[in-house]
Amino acid sequence: MRVAILVHEGFPDRAKTAVGILRYGDDEVVAVLDRTRAGERVRDHVPDVQDAPIVEGIDDVDEPLDALVVGIAPIGGGFDETWRPDVRAALERGADVVAGLHYFLADDDEFARLADEHGAELRDLRRPPDDLAVSDGRASEVDAEVVLTVGTDCSSGKMTTTFELAEAARERGVDAGVVPTGQTGIAIENYGIAVDRVVSDFAAGAVERMVEERAAEFDVLFVEGQGAVAHPAYSGVTTSVLHGAMPDRLVLCHAAGRDAVHGYEHVPIPPPGEYAALYESLVDPVAPAEVIAGSLNTQDLDADAAGDAVDEYAHAIDAPATDPVRFDASEILPAVLGAE
Amino acid sequence: MRVAILVHEGFPDRAKTAVGILRYGDDEVVAVLDRTRAGERVRDHVPDVQDAPIVEGIDDVDEPLDALVVGIAPIGGGFDETWRPDVRAALERGADVVAGLHYFLADDDEFARLADEHGAELRDLRRPPDDLAVSDGRASEVDAEVVLTVGTDCSSGKMTTTFELAEAARERGVDAGVVPTGQTGIAIENYGIAVDRVVSDFAAGAVERMVEERAAEFDVLFVEGQGAVAHPAYSGVTTSVLHGAMPDRLVLCHAAGRDAVHGYEHVPIPPPGEYAALYESLVDPVAPAEVIAGSLNTQDLDADAAGDAVDEYAHAIDAPATDPVRFDASEILPAVLGAE
Repeated sequence: MRVAILVHEGFPDRAKTAVGILRYGDDEVVAVLDRTRAGERVRDHVPDVQDAPIVEGIDDVDEPLDALVVGIAPIGGGFDETWRPDVRAALERGADVVAGLHYFLADDDEFARLADEHGAELRDLRRPPDDLAVSDGRASEVDAEVVLTVGTDCSSGKMTTTFELAEAARERGVDAGVVPTGQTGIAIENYGIAVDRVVSDFAAGAVERMVEERAAEFDVLFVEGQGAVAHPAYSGVTTSVLHGAMPDRLVLCHAAGRDAVHGYEHVPIPPPGEYAALYESLVDPVAPAEVIAGSLNTQDLDADAAGDAVDEYAHAIDAPATDPVRFDASEILPAVLGAE
Repeated sequence: MRVAILVHEGFPDRAKTAVGILRYGDDEVVAVLDRTRAGERVRDHVPDVQDAPIVEGIDDVDEPLDALVVGIAPIGGGFDETWRPDVRAALERGADVVAGLHYFLADDDEFARLADEHGAELRDLRRPPDDLAVSDGRASEVDAEVVLTVGTDCSSGKMTTTFELAEAARERGVDAGVVPTGQTGIAIENYGIAVDRVVSDFAAGAVERMVEERAAEFDVLFVEGQGAVAHPAYSGVTTSVLHGAMPDRLVLCHAAGRDAVHGYEHVPIPPPGEYAALYESLVDPVAPAEVIAGSLNTQDLDADAAGDAVDEYAHAIDAPATDPVRFDASEILPAVLGAE
């Protein structure tokens, strides 16, 4: 697929979905739309990802286009009306439009009409399937090995670690697949359910369904965790993923130096060792698993401090650890695959 | 309010909502509709609740009627078409119709039209408000004391214990209110949000909102818990209630003799002492609280065995315990109110 990614005024720092697609996606990115950076290139801002030109708007994209992806997630998940001309023009070219907003494009009368007229599809990644059900509590019976990333907070590296581990496993010849549970992962994989948008009764069931579907395709599954189990707002989503996926092993993700929940500074984050024990005690009665590796996001540290922080983190959780972006996911892969 | 309760072919065993309203509600129940028991009375089946005649259908209710309540929750939450004539006739009399089904009465064209024509209201208790938001993580700051019932399984007595404790507290002169989180409690209180129907991102926020609203009205709140934290399907809902409510104290509810999750017999229920510790470890990083009392459902035991089981349960969780229906909620009230 040839795609363009809309990230107006957000590239690269507020464009998690765009960067995820550029880094891990299989699609060819023909352009990034950011009117504040027109004329620059992706590589000017983010190394080690697929390069692409940054343009003013969709009219500057001359190549044939299969889809326009909204690669920015504004707070609140709304649709910014300044994006409308690009979305309109994409549909008029017959390109699909893909978004992970709370605002569903398919419910927008103009977009629905244009999509219909031009044979294009509106794909709202956060809209849950309408046939979800309560979990059967049977995900532990799948044939695949299931590895779940869990975190000490939101934005602690679960999505990145999931994809880095899957890539490292594939490089080693392992038949590895990803189970995405959030809109960025879904945009990258072109598959998945945004668990945070599912009615809470069915959240574990949604994860169970994905694990069962993907276990039929792959030998090892890397399931993207959500939130954190001691997060005051999102812990319910976290727990649903934990018990819905029934993983064999857990990888604990943490942002170095963060000691309070992001956006909830009055709620301290427990020390990593205690946090690992909390996850283990929660899965134990349902489907036991241990934290067998750690992933530390060291982007706020310099190189020396990063190495020390990883060593300290590994000691705290009593398991091998790495920063899979700065260093290498393959360092923890043997533990993750159960070979250690 | 004068209400009739529809429970066709379900009274009393499959009519949890009806029995809850008869036992704890403030409304006057003028009739129970069960065509298989017409001519009998509530007291023939359930002692110690408000009495009422059981009739064939709504045409046998001669009294003025404010509302018809659907007091039966079929598996799947669907609407049984054999109920339609009673619902129709209630609306034609101008009575509101209240239901906690997954099927929303207000989305039924005939009911919507009749309600409109006759100035009646269709109240779907499970429909969440459309302005819910993510939790602020601030429920611990309310002035009221907050007591949450938690369980070792679904149907372990959380709703009953919540209402029994609130009643016992009121009898002692305490200004106590209930925060209902499921459809039966909502039907009884005429207030509340069915947390299991809320999008999982907003589940804790829904509970937080209710705690903040009710804390402005009462000195002590009894929050109805949901599910169980080691339940393979519903643990996410449980965790959202736990962190959304930020209770000061927990009451652990257990069904005597049950050692596997109901409907998930392959998942064992941890021993009560371990279960209490699991709840405490989960609230500890967010808003610490302890299991300070236990509620044991002994309905399957004879009188002698029930007393022994309560003693054993109290010992296991290292806290006072009772069966609030068979014995008396006031036995654990001092602990629940923090007076012990």
